[in-house]
Amino acid sequence: MIRLSTTDADFADRFTALVEDRRESDAGVTQDVAAIIASVRRDGEAALRDLTQKHDRHDLEATGWQIDAADCKAAFDALEPELRTALELAAARIRAYHEKQRPLDSDSVDSAGVRLGARWLPVDAAGIYVPGGRAAYPSSLLMNAIPAKVAGVGRLAMVTPTPDGQINPLVLAAAHLAGVDEVWRVGGAQAVAALAYGAGRIAPVDVITGPGNAWVAEAKRQVYGVVGIDMVAGPSEIVVVADALNDPEWTAADLLSQAEHDVTTQSILFTDDAAFADKVAAAVDRQLSALATEAVARVAWDANGAIIVVDTLADAIPLVDRLAAEHLQLAIPDPQGFFDHVRHAGSVFLGRYTPEAIGDYVAGPNHVLPTGRRARFASGLSVLDFMKRTSFLALDEAALRELGPATVALANAEGLPAHAKSVALRLRLNH
Amino acid sequence: MIRLSTTDADFADRFTALVEDRRESDAGVTQDVAAIIASVRRDGEAALRDLTQKHDRHDLEATGWQIDAADCKAAFDALEPELRTALELAAARIRAYHEKQRPLDSDSVDSAGVRLGARWLPVDAAGIYVPGGRAAYPSSLLMNAIPAKVAGVGRLAMVTPTPDGQINPLVLAAAHLAGVDEVWRVGGAQAVAALAYGAGRIAPVDVITGPGNAWVAEAKRQVYGVVGIDMVAGPSEIVVVADALNDPEWTAADLLSQAEHDVTTQSILFTDDAAFADKVAAAVDRQLSALATEAVARVAWDANGAIIVVDTLADAIPLVDRLAAEHLQLAIPDPQGFFDHVRHAGSVFLGRYTPEAIGDYVAGPNHVLPTGRRARFASGLSVLDFMKRTSFLALDEAALRELGPATVALANAEGLPAHAKSVALRLRLNH
Repeated sequence: MIRLSTTDADFADRFTALVEDRRESDAGVTQDVAAIIASVRRDGEAALRDLTQKHDRHDLEATGWQIDAADCKAAFDALEPELRTALELAAARIRAYHEKQRPLDSDSVDSAGVRLGARWLPVDAAGIYVPGGRAAYPSSLLMNAIPAKVAGVGRLAMVTPTPDGQINPLVLAAAHLAGVDEVWRVGGAQAVAALAYGAGRIAPVDVITGPGNAWVAEAKRQVYGVVGIDMVAGPSEIVVVADALNDPEWTAADLLSQAEHDVTTQSILFTDDAAFADKVAAAVDRQLSALATEAVARVAWDANGAIIVVDTLADAIPLVDRLAAEHLQLAIPDPQGFFDHVRHAGSVFLGRYTPEAIGDYVAGPNHVLPTGRRARFASGLSVLDFMKRTSFLALDEAALRELGPATVALANAEGLPAHAKSVALRLRLNH
Repeated sequence: MIRLSTTDADFADRFTALVEDRRESDAGVTQDVAAIIASVRRDGEAALRDLTQKHDRHDLEATGWQIDAADCKAAFDALEPELRTALELAAARIRAYHEKQRPLDSDSVDSAGVRLGARWLPVDAAGIYVPGGRAAYPSSLLMNAIPAKVAGVGRLAMVTPTPDGQINPLVLAAAHLAGVDEVWRVGGAQAVAALAYGAGRIAPVDVITGPGNAWVAEAKRQVYGVVGIDMVAGPSEIVVVADALNDPEWTAADLLSQAEHDVTTQSILFTDDAAFADKVAAAVDRQLSALATEAVARVAWDANGAIIVVDTLADAIPLVDRLAAEHLQLAIPDPQGFFDHVRHAGSVFLGRYTPEAIGDYVAGPNHVLPTGRRARFASGLSVLDFMKRTSFLALDEAALRELGPATVALANAEGLPAHAKSVALRLRLNH
């Protein structure tokens, strides 16, 4: 953890270093991933079977390529009641929030007599990557699958590695609840390649979303353009702005809730009170010792954590904007006033009773958010990521007469005479 | 040009070949572009100056890095009245169409007492690539710049190569009309790198859009994630569906208006009348001989053109969907009925008096559209490409009490105890 104050002589440089710290490994995965994609395109199922044997230590022909819908339903039915209720609450609230994102079509006739508009439709098929092992989160499955289903996607195929053939039953339960149509026991870059290009029994999809390790992220980047993808995702981060009126234990838990995800995550506290900063730092240390995820969270906090003391809370605004954080939690007296001045953040948590974790599960907004300063230009996952817009135009002869001469003039000026001719012929104009 | 009929014995295979024909060169530009980006990141302005000297044969220190706003205004003022009126009509209609795309914010309190919503803001800065040489189209500049300005982007930087120091005055006039803030005399992959990472006097932007050659397209792909980009664009295409009631000359001109763009473009006609197909083929040949762009259009038509005879117009619907064309023109008796069944197209032109060219210039919808079957998942350029959405949440203690227990249950089930603790502490729950 680093401790900074805006009054430090070297603050500007040290803060810039914090902003520019990418925490993203691109350690030669590009070539590996390109080779994996090429092998799946060339050898199809055989490549998937070999790579699964190598990385997940099971034979797809023996364990089965797919997990049946009946198995997903059985996992859901076997949930203990408390978890089942929690998962259902989450799904219902996520669905309600995303239903409001459905875009409206437009269709109107303007004063020139031109009918023009736009029509939205879902993609035919979407693929969702669900990590195996430690990061096999049913909440992530809901956050990816439900927007696709709300969009109206007809075929939703999930891929997930099952190391040694094992899979988290909670993930299967969530797949049932979200209405996933196919569950394939394939992971890694090879699974992304199979979704993008198709491989034997796995038909290709149009959009691929979902979190994964560096290989999965790079594979999504490499197939972008062949299919749509949600975003280039990196390590997670939280910025907490808190004054001395907070309970330091609450603030410490908020910072650690990010740190426990992965050793690459970043937790940053801004406060206007140095004594409060000390108390939070001490509380973080104390809580870490009792945390089951200490091994991960302590590395993340030590390597990437930061506490920054500012003179006034308003001084934090431009600094927060430069960080363009995935999560921004405002535990201050006037969170809305602060938010009004922030331009860049993935998701904002307003007030002392809105811990970031509430947004990870049940609140409703999507928890798939832009990381690594990408909130400057990117948005969280939404229904729009699973839809596409077709614009349309209809002119009659009178409308074409209104717009035709300008079109002919511009087409000729651009040196495109066939463009001009296609209009001029219809209007019997010189061109 | 190939001629197919759905009754051909080998129709399925030949149509699939047409669908899968990518027409995209990836002839080793990947490594070239990576090297150019690395050199711009390392050497900044010096790299730009060297590469400009090499490719565009002028010295930026002598010709000037930027073109002044005054020069753009002078170019606009010097336009002949007909062109000036045409450009102004185009800009006004493009602006009007895109103003309707501005997204609405949401902000509401639900039955659990949770305030939740989403806020849209423009990115701080956008960069537009404008090609030099033959494809220096003022219309493309308007189609890229106006949505950015409608979104509210504060800084709009344009890059364009000026071979031998020369630039098309129409492009400068369009830059003035669209309100471009900076015009840089830099092109190629190096210009994209400068916009993404910054290079000396060129400050970095958040989003890069605009057409370019294979190097520019690959550079955008490589910087995707560092900045947002509009899309991975490929060669242009048109599908025309026309019955025998059309004037074959009109249909021929429609096909050629695509073919004249570039030797890689694809023009495809579907018709239910073989005699009409013959007449169009003859008209294309005749028109080609008189076309100033014959050299390009003939190569494109010969290499990539197709005429496909179907039994009934309805038979064309699934074929059209598989092509997922950038442009779809429906010169048939019931264009709306056909369009109702089409799922995939970038932009649709309904009826005999709606030639595609009208959409290239003045109609209003964007002419930057998904190519190469990407209309399956991608949309035309819009105001949304220059904006991003921040979701937000606000809970009070009562609302947290509603959602807290489910969050604690799910966080514990996912093995994330600090997540659970951040909620449980606030509610004095066991966790």
